[in-house]
Amino acid sequence: MISLIQMRYLEFQTNSGDMVDITNRVTQSLSESGLRSGLATIFVPGATGAVTTIENEIGLKEDMKAALERWAPGNIRYAHDERWHDGNGHSHIRASLIGPSLTLPFSDGKLTLGIWQQIVFLEMDNRPRQRKIVVQIMGET
Amino acid sequence: MISLIQMRYLEFQTNSGDMVDITNRVTQSLSESGLRSGLATIFVPGATGAVTTIENEIGLKEDMKAALERWAPGNIRYAHDERWHDGNGHSHIRASLIGPSLTLPFSDGKLTLGIWQQIVFLEMDNRPRQRKIVVQIMGET
Amino acid sequence: MISLIQMRYLEFQTNSGDMVDITNRVTQSLSESGLRSGLATIFVPGATGAVTTIENEIGLKEDMKAALERWAPGNIRYAHDERWHDGNGHSHIRASLIGPSLTLPFSDGKLTLGIWQQIVFLEMDNRPRQRKIVVQIMGET
Repeated sequence: MISLIQMRYLEFQTNSGDMVDITNRVTQSLSESGLRSGLATIFVPGATGAVTTIENEIGLKEDMKAALERWAPGNIRYAHDERWHDGNGHSHIRASLIGPSLTLPFSDGKLTLGIWQQIVFLEMDNRPRQRKIVVQIMGET
Repeated sequence: MISLIQMRYLEFQTNSGDMVDITNRVTQSLSESGLRSGLATIFVPGATGAVTTIENEIGLKEDMKAALERWAPGNIRYAHDERWHDGNGHSHIRASLIGPSLTLPFSDGKLTLGIWQQIVFLEMDNRPRQRKIVVQIMGET
Repeated sequence: MISLIQMRYLEFQTNSGDMVDITNRVTQSLSESGLRSGLATIFVPGATGAVTTIENEIGLKEDMKAALERWAPGNIRYAHDERWHDGNGHSHIRASLIGPSLTLPFSDGKLTLGIWQQIVFLEMDNRPRQRKIVVQIMGET
């Protein structure tokens, strides 16, 4: 048993409203780490993106987009926009609601995800972004 | 000081809309682990259930049910339902909103929960389910 | 490489609706721990407060307050209030929605936060509170 902490970064380009399935990239990071048992933490360094799990099918992509629009509509007043004029007040509120962090236990070298459950990054910002997401893997060989 | 990672699974039957208090089972898992200091991670392997904390009293059970209905109503259109015809589009959206994962520090062999704060599994699905929830305990003796 | 787990507590007074930026206090706790690589977990022991990240500027403070009011209005019926008469049913629902826990990877002795991303405690309760927030730092020197 050797305890280790490894940091990986997932880099990708997004467009506004994208739901990016990062499950395979997290699985690959875990595989490369050589760790068998522990905790994988996905973290979004930034205030206009978030991470959660969902069944990644095209219907739910549309439904999540509609839900975010209901939870923090893009067309209402935001004090943030009046101060900064970047028009992404709703992006910030949506990101804080869903949250920047996700912790996933793994065992026997495998994430404990359900079969129909994927890890997704949600691009809340109102413009394309170059994202660099943290995947920290902490555990034992 | 010995560092250890232990996996436990909580199995139970649910009905649609159930709020299941799992605090005692998590506390027991922690006690059985023999670890004194560390992090307990509760994880829902599945896309239609979630975990959070709440004061587990009958009034808030009703209030949370009403809130979930406001946040993702059961009676609006979901693209997921149009594609898969299982009628649980709202279940998926609610689960992604609340999230599948909860991390709880423990110290002196005790979770750092508040007195009126319980760990609850929220069954969002629209039918009874057999659930198997992950409790991972990572830390030191 | 020495593995360690350290517990810190952040104590402060709040008023109802406060958004308290605790980034500097978490950073200081990390610095004092002497750990270089690992996971910092922020946990709210209590059912009427929550933790998330946001760009801590005065516009978003107002926008988050308005969003919480939309997500769980203070002026609708709560079964909790009918039973307990403390008028904070909405506080509980808001806290469960945002969540009590936040996990932050750190590396080279630094949190992996974005430049415009701060850690905030959200006081959801309807009265001033004395809060004691858990900061657990787990990792390696």
